[in-house]
Amino acid sequence: MQQRSEETRARILDAAVKRFAIAGYNAACVDEICAEAGVSKGAFYHHFPSKQAVFLALLQGWLSTIDAGLEMARQDTVPQTLIHMTNTLPAIFAAADERLPMFLEFWLQASRDEAIWNNTIAPYRHYRDYFASLVTQGIVEGSFKPVDAHAAAQVILSLAVGLVLQGVLDPQGADWQKVAEESMKILMNGLAA
Amino acid sequence: MQQRSEETRARILDAAVKRFAIAGYNAACVDEICAEAGVSKGAFYHHFPSKQAVFLALLQGWLSTIDAGLEMARQDTVPQTLIHMTNTLPAIFAAADERLPMFLEFWLQASRDEAIWNNTIAPYRHYRDYFASLVTQGIVEGSFKPVDAHAAAQVILSLAVGLVLQGVLDPQGADWQKVAEESMKILMNGLAA
Repeated sequence: MQQRSEETRARILDAAVKRFAIAGYNAACVDEICAEAGVSKGAFYHHFPSKQAVFLALLQGWLSTIDAGLEMARQDTVPQTLIHMTNTLPAIFAAADERLPMFLEFWLQASRDEAIWNNTIAPYRHYRDYFASLVTQGIVEGSFKPVDAHAAAQVILSLAVGLVLQGVLDPQGADWQKVAEESMKILMNGLAA
Repeated sequence: MQQRSEETRARILDAAVKRFAIAGYNAACVDEICAEAGVSKGAFYHHFPSKQAVFLALLQGWLSTIDAGLEMARQDTVPQTLIHMTNTLPAIFAAADERLPMFLEFWLQASRDEAIWNNTIAPYRHYRDYFASLVTQGIVEGSFKPVDAHAAAQVILSLAVGLVLQGVLDPQGADWQKVAEESMKILMNGLAA
C-alpha cells in the first residue's frame, strides 16, 4: 500500500513536469496534471494540497541534486573545491532538464508575492551562507586574502546564477562547463593570498 | 500628423508594458493593449505587425539605455572603465522597471523557438563581443595579463547576468550596486597584469 502511494506521488510529479513544461506553471491546472498522471483529483489532493505544493516538491528535488553535487565536490583546499564544483554543472543542467524555465517562471511570479517569496528565497539564502562559510574556511587555511567573505560569496553566487541562466537559455552558446571553470580560476586568482 | 503618429506609438508601448506586467507576455493580447492605449486595432497594426514586434521595440529601448550607460562609463583605463560601469546598474534596473520579468518570460519562450531566438540572441552576442574587445584593450594597455579575452568576457557577462537577475528577483536582498562593484574589483584583481 505504501509502495503504491509512493508510485502515485511520483506519477503526479512526472505529470506536473510535463504539463508545466508545455503550458507553463501559471497556465497548467490540477485537472490536466491528474489526466496526464492518470490519477483522480482525490488522489492528487491526498498527496499535495495545491499546485504550488507540487512545484515546491519539484524544486526541492532539484536543490537536493545540487546539494549532493556540492557535497561531492569537496577537496583538500577551498580553491580546489570551488574549481572542482564547476564539474557538477552538467549534472545540475541535466537534473534541471526541462524544469528550469518553470522554476524561473515561478520565481518571477513569486517575486511579486511576499508570502510565496519568503518560502522560495530560503534555498537561495542557504547557498549564500554556504559559499560564505567556504570563503571563510579558505581565509583560515591561508588560500585567500582576508576578504569580506559575505561579499566574495555573493560574487561566486552571482556568477553561478548567471552561468545557469545562460546555460538554460542558450545551451549551444558556449561550453558552459569550460566557461564556469575559467571563471572560477579568474575568481580564485582574484581572491588568492 | 507625424507628431500624432509618434504619440500613438508611444501610447501603445506604454499600454503594452502595463498589460505584459499584469498578465504576462503570453497571456496579454493585442485587444487588451489597444483598449489600454485607447487606440483602434487598425492604428495598432499601422505601427506594429504583431505583439512580438511591440515586445522587441520595448526590448530595444531597454538595450539602448544599457548601451548609453556603457558608453558613458568610459574611463582612462579598462579596469577603471569596468569598475565605473557598475555605477550604471541602478539606471539599468530603473529602466528595466517592471519590464524585466516580461523580458525573461519572453526569452524563456524564445529559447524554445529557433526563429525568434535568432532575433533575440543578437543583443546578447553583441555584449559578449563588446566585453571581449574591452578585455583585449586592457591587455594591450598593459592592465591585464595575456588572458583569453573571449573567456574573460564571458566571465564578466555571466556576472552581469547573474547580478541583474538577482537584482530583479530579490531587490531587497543586497545592495546590488555594491555587490557589483566588489565583484568587479575581485575580477580585476584576478585579471591584473
